[in-house]
Amino acid sequence: MTEAVPRLGIGMVGYAFMGVAHSQAWRNAPRFFDLPLRPDMAAVAGRDEAAVSAAATKLGWSSTETDWKALVSRDDIDLVDICTPGDTHAEIAIAALEAGKHVLCEKPLANSVEEAEAMVRAAEASSGLAMVGFTYRRVPAIQLARQLVADGRIGTVRHVRAQYLQDWIADPQAPLSWRLDKQKAGSGALGDIGAHIVDLAQFVTGESVTGVSAVLETFVKERPVASEHSGLHGTAGTETGPVTVDDAAIFLGRMSGGGLATFEATRFAWGRKNAIRLEINGSLGSLAFDFEDMNVLHYFDATESAAVAGFRRIVVTEPEHAYVAAWWPPGHGLGYEHAFTHQAVDLITAVAEHRQPLPSFADGLVVQRVLAAVEESAANDSTWTPVTKES
Amino acid sequence: MTEAVPRLGIGMVGYAFMGVAHSQAWRNAPRFFDLPLRPDMAAVAGRDEAAVSAAATKLGWSSTETDWKALVSRDDIDLVDICTPGDTHAEIAIAALEAGKHVLCEKPLANSVEEAEAMVRAAEASSGLAMVGFTYRRVPAIQLARQLVADGRIGTVRHVRAQYLQDWIADPQAPLSWRLDKQKAGSGALGDIGAHIVDLAQFVTGESVTGVSAVLETFVKERPVASEHSGLHGTAGTETGPVTVDDAAIFLGRMSGGGLATFEATRFAWGRKNAIRLEINGSLGSLAFDFEDMNVLHYFDATESAAVAGFRRIVVTEPEHAYVAAWWPPGHGLGYEHAFTHQAVDLITAVAEHRQPLPSFADGLVVQRVLAAVEESAANDSTWTPVTKES
Amino acid sequence: MTEAVPRLGIGMVGYAFMGVAHSQAWRNAPRFFDLPLRPDMAAVAGRDEAAVSAAATKLGWSSTETDWKALVSRDDIDLVDICTPGDTHAEIAIAALEAGKHVLCEKPLANSVEEAEAMVRAAEASSGLAMVGFTYRRVPAIQLARQLVADGRIGTVRHVRAQYLQDWIADPQAPLSWRLDKQKAGSGALGDIGAHIVDLAQFVTGESVTGVSAVLETFVKERPVASEHSGLHGTAGTETGPVTVDDAAIFLGRMSGGGLATFEATRFAWGRKNAIRLEINGSLGSLAFDFEDMNVLHYFDATESAAVAGFRRIVVTEPEHAYVAAWWPPGHGLGYEHAFTHQAVDLITAVAEHRQPLPSFADGLVVQRVLAAVEESAANDSTWTPVTKES
Amino acid sequence: MTEAVPRLGIGMVGYAFMGVAHSQAWRNAPRFFDLPLRPDMAAVAGRDEAAVSAAATKLGWSSTETDWKALVSRDDIDLVDICTPGDTHAEIAIAALEAGKHVLCEKPLANSVEEAEAMVRAAEASSGLAMVGFTYRRVPAIQLARQLVADGRIGTVRHVRAQYLQDWIADPQAPLSWRLDKQKAGSGALGDIGAHIVDLAQFVTGESVTGVSAVLETFVKERPVASEHSGLHGTAGTETGPVTVDDAAIFLGRMSGGGLATFEATRFAWGRKNAIRLEINGSLGSLAFDFEDMNVLHYFDATESAAVAGFRRIVVTEPEHAYVAAWWPPGHGLGYEHAFTHQAVDLITAVAEHRQPLPSFADGLVVQRVLAAVEESAANDSTWTPVTKES
Repeated sequence: MTEAVPRLGIGMVGYAFMGVAHSQAWRNAPRFFDLPLRPDMAAVAGRDEAAVSAAATKLGWSSTETDWKALVSRDDIDLVDICTPGDTHAEIAIAALEAGKHVLCEKPLANSVEEAEAMVRAAEASSGLAMVGFTYRRVPAIQLARQLVADGRIGTVRHVRAQYLQDWIADPQAPLSWRLDKQKAGSGALGDIGAHIVDLAQFVTGESVTGVSAVLETFVKERPVASEHSGLHGTAGTETGPVTVDDAAIFLGRMSGGGLATFEATRFAWGRKNAIRLEINGSLGSLAFDFEDMNVLHYFDATESAAVAGFRRIVVTEPEHAYVAAWWPPGHGLGYEHAFTHQAVDLITAVAEHRQPLPSFADGLVVQRVLAAVEESAANDSTWTPVTKES
Repeated sequence: MTEAVPRLGIGMVGYAFMGVAHSQAWRNAPRFFDLPLRPDMAAVAGRDEAAVSAAATKLGWSSTETDWKALVSRDDIDLVDICTPGDTHAEIAIAALEAGKHVLCEKPLANSVEEAEAMVRAAEASSGLAMVGFTYRRVPAIQLARQLVADGRIGTVRHVRAQYLQDWIADPQAPLSWRLDKQKAGSGALGDIGAHIVDLAQFVTGESVTGVSAVLETFVKERPVASEHSGLHGTAGTETGPVTVDDAAIFLGRMSGGGLATFEATRFAWGRKNAIRLEINGSLGSLAFDFEDMNVLHYFDATESAAVAGFRRIVVTEPEHAYVAAWWPPGHGLGYEHAFTHQAVDLITAVAEHRQPLPSFADGLVVQRVLAAVEESAANDSTWTPVTKES
Repeated sequence: MTEAVPRLGIGMVGYAFMGVAHSQAWRNAPRFFDLPLRPDMAAVAGRDEAAVSAAATKLGWSSTETDWKALVSRDDIDLVDICTPGDTHAEIAIAALEAGKHVLCEKPLANSVEEAEAMVRAAEASSGLAMVGFTYRRVPAIQLARQLVADGRIGTVRHVRAQYLQDWIADPQAPLSWRLDKQKAGSGALGDIGAHIVDLAQFVTGESVTGVSAVLETFVKERPVASEHSGLHGTAGTETGPVTVDDAAIFLGRMSGGGLATFEATRFAWGRKNAIRLEINGSLGSLAFDFEDMNVLHYFDATESAAVAGFRRIVVTEPEHAYVAAWWPPGHGLGYEHAFTHQAVDLITAVAEHRQPLPSFADGLVVQRVLAAVEESAANDSTWTPVTKES
Repeated sequence: MTEAVPRLGIGMVGYAFMGVAHSQAWRNAPRFFDLPLRPDMAAVAGRDEAAVSAAATKLGWSSTETDWKALVSRDDIDLVDICTPGDTHAEIAIAALEAGKHVLCEKPLANSVEEAEAMVRAAEASSGLAMVGFTYRRVPAIQLARQLVADGRIGTVRHVRAQYLQDWIADPQAPLSWRLDKQKAGSGALGDIGAHIVDLAQFVTGESVTGVSAVLETFVKERPVASEHSGLHGTAGTETGPVTVDDAAIFLGRMSGGGLATFEATRFAWGRKNAIRLEINGSLGSLAFDFEDMNVLHYFDATESAAVAGFRRIVVTEPEHAYVAAWWPPGHGLGYEHAFTHQAVDLITAVAEHRQPLPSFADGLVVQRVLAAVEESAANDSTWTPVTKES
């Protein structure tokens, strides 16, 4: 990338797990892809001056701010990348959009439908473009799944079964972290990982979830207080505190095309580290994906002769597959972080072309409404609860 | 087996898919297992004299009856094996029990809770012993799963996810059969295959489903009428008729030990031929099973060091595994039909020892009540519906 | 099967592991298949009168002989089924053929090329038909593999990789059995399981192995003497004795069509119970099979678009697949023993039609010559050794 | 990483596939790991000035050279990273070592044993440290495999089966590239990918290959000439030229601990994109790895009770696993490129600590001698050929 390519000033708020992943993306995007704009990692914001300075050096940001408002108002920042817990998303995003900045906001979009709606309105009113970080959409195997559905290869969707299984708090001695605090995280497994599978189910099918019936559960109601909150996991102390979010969410749904869906999000599935599983059965075929084998998509073509039909294990590492040609030769698989680079590439491209990047805040709101319907159903004897369409 | 072993006269009603499987079991049991009673395949009953005669010759039955009532009243019949559609189970089983016969009844136990309750009462009142044919319990890998749970190897059950996926009517041109007729089959995927996963979930965990939230769906509401009804599938004609049962059932549940459960039964999962999947996460470990790889159980032991912990793919073909020593050397896997032989062996043994064989009619009733709760919830906006405990 | 179907009198010699499997086949064949001849299990021969009588009762044979020569000379025996160790194959088979009987002889055909040649000559001279028991050919997934190659679906064969991995003597305390005695077994892993993969490689490709380079090894040279020799495994005593056969055989080969092959047969692969693996790469596609998942064949079609090409996991349980329609509905997998029934069906059919059953003794001789070339190469610094074509 | 960390000047020669991967490693290492030296990407060398300039900008190098000799003599270069074809390795590496530079040389070390020996002598004589790029050693699952063997968890090694299967020239129309030219590449599949599995087999077992019996084959002897040679694949033109290297190499080996080994390297295995498979059976257990599922190691512990023993699918993404803690939370898998970063980290650390980095040039020479023995055996009727120990 030559210096002749116009600059896009990036400012990031938050530098924990997601901040590290986003930084890697901004650094990598121009190394592997030909971009219309050159991302310039101008500033990172965090409240602790020493910590944010160390992070800036480590992650490659040129300057720091200890107040996100200062970052949002800087002239050399064109795009604000929000990597903080969910309770701060709305305020930061709306301020950034009001300042005319482009915004990339981590998921879930917000901790409530009301916040999400305000964010959508802010996005509509702004000259900035807004995108929500449902990063898994940009795993090449998921892109292929979407393509096959869009091409009609599996016909009408009959069944979606989506699971996001982790085990990092299956041990009752795993400490409290902000992710277990309703005030900060909004919800537990539901918002953190359930949001991903709702978005994936909708993205891959091109449909929306129209209603749900749900159960939420908190298995371990009291946990040791972590001594530090940095990173995903803290270190357990002697004190304990309440878990105020769900440990697991299970729900049934109906898709707008008439199919049935089952969803399950849990952090109590021992042995499943980051198993995002999506299986779709249509009238002409089926698809199956598991993030534990993220470079593979399984596809069953029911139009083939029965004697040789079978789920194809497609290794999604060919130049024909989305994003892959920019990386390595066939068979040299990608890892977790690459989808963040793809997200950066697509966002930079959309900004350069003045197009709405996807998923938009409106897409994030749709997910938020599904999550709200899940909570409402769970609070109401699992009664079927339609997903609202308008505020 | 010498002639000195006492005889147990068997009479079978029905000789389609299940009748063929049961016949194989009665023939094989004494060839591989040392039995306390010698099963004598005395008579098979069916309404069509020519057809039942041909079946008797093919399957190895010594005589035939065209009226099941005649079969039930024969002195040389000690045990009545009911392999007919569900709408006839109650009448035949109750008559057989009243005649003092032992009974093996195919699942689901009945087409309604009321019928099932009457059957349980008949079993309690009879000198005969009664068993319901939830055959998959006797797959060695399922036996091992049950053992590991009972031994406390996975701790408290947190999650059950159970699926029974088939695709034999995913094609809208697949013809009507008695299995798609509510009058005969009682229900569709729910009673035919959903019943199996409810029983398996309860059997393996040693717990019961206490309540459900459910959705039932019929995707294809009209189908070609089959010209013949023999076997599982018929042949399509030009006429069409209504499908009066569910094509798919999805439901959430809670287990008596506090865990959450998701269930899915469908015949519309292209590419999944007979995928009975059971995955259980406990506080100390996890189990996973898929009937498409029926000789394997996956087991995760969370007490192992994190560096070497992993789902073990246990090939359940060692002499240490249930039933296996009677068959072949290690690694020589069993097939679908072997569980029926195991069922016959266990039933014969229980009869010889005057013990209640399991699963009992009461166990079948428990499943029936879960199915009834599913139907009630589905008819009532998916509202949470407790599973009744008493009539 | 009505009595009107002509009778085929079967006499079996030996009743250990293979005898049990063959008996099951003779019993099952007429129950599931429509046969042109009715197999009558007339007599089983064994040296120990009490043991053979018990076996006859258990396995379903009508009478016994303590001298195989008596069995061979009986008028009511049309077909002699040889299930004894390899050192007796030639004598029994030749005698049976000279008596005009049909013969089914377990593999390997003989313990030497000379014996095998004599057997082939006897088969050619006899009115009886002779078949060797390379049973795995009749696993439906292997039949499908053969069909796909024959149909040109994978093009010219480039690579064969064939492995037969077991672990039953990986423990140095596993006792001596006749299978570890060169006098009885002829060779070790090579003849017992290596023979199978040589035959499978040749059968599926339709080609022959033209030369080899080999290494044989005996890892554990002394073992406890088993107190009993019945069955596959004995029970260890305190005495020890020498292992006189190979524990493992590895060899390279060239196929007659120009492809390369690697073979490995071992009983020291901990965790692999009966892993017969066959992988074939051709100019247009690939196939992969593992007997640990015996109802599945993997097929890669290189003519498909790169974006959606992938190994298809074909669950070989559809009516379109060889033998399957006679058994159960789709998805209800077969087990180890079913291939023996298929073998019986095909042999009975060939006899009825006066056709040469396959694999013939000549096919068995071809395998024997490959094994001999392996032994010669291993004894000669692994030097390339052509497989002889004529005696 | 603060500026206080001492600088390590890196100069890279070549910027095609391997150069891109190495550049990513130099960039990433300080972002995720705490390093004792700060890698400074000072210069990249290539003959074409425009191309090398573009590469420098894209990949992040501060300056360029069009003559590698100029690069080697620069004072600001402490470490020379050689990413050119094999025919140039010896000259560049020796010059760099003579100039007192540290050297990282891509594998295979050289195109002949003689060259490799000269390189080893140069390394011994130099103040610089030398390392060869057998990068796959640094995949976390391979590190775990090595650790388990070193800890005695699988006991004495009985069997190694190692395969490297690709399909990128299975199509006869795939064009010639420098990798198919003996002059540049030294050998074909043998040196390019066979070298990797020889090194992995030796690394994981901690043993060496003592002798081999081999077959080499070129299936497609003439191919279209590529119009451009950049990257792994070129674009086919109308002209054709001879393939002067092997398409496939298969060989048997013996390990220094008494075990047997089979090796297979091919670019003709349709459907296998980059399948590096390593399976090891020991007296106490087994290991299995496939790079197509690179974040997983399979481990069978034969000391476990037979009822629950099974290959464990260890997802190697826990903080306890080598290198993983520096990246992402559990379950967030790495990709192909990460092993290059690990290589950079280990090399930088060794340089800072004045320790010999591994694998050393001597380790590379050991592999070279195995490859030479393979070629000698293949040229000599596959006769067993010891691997030489000294020049």
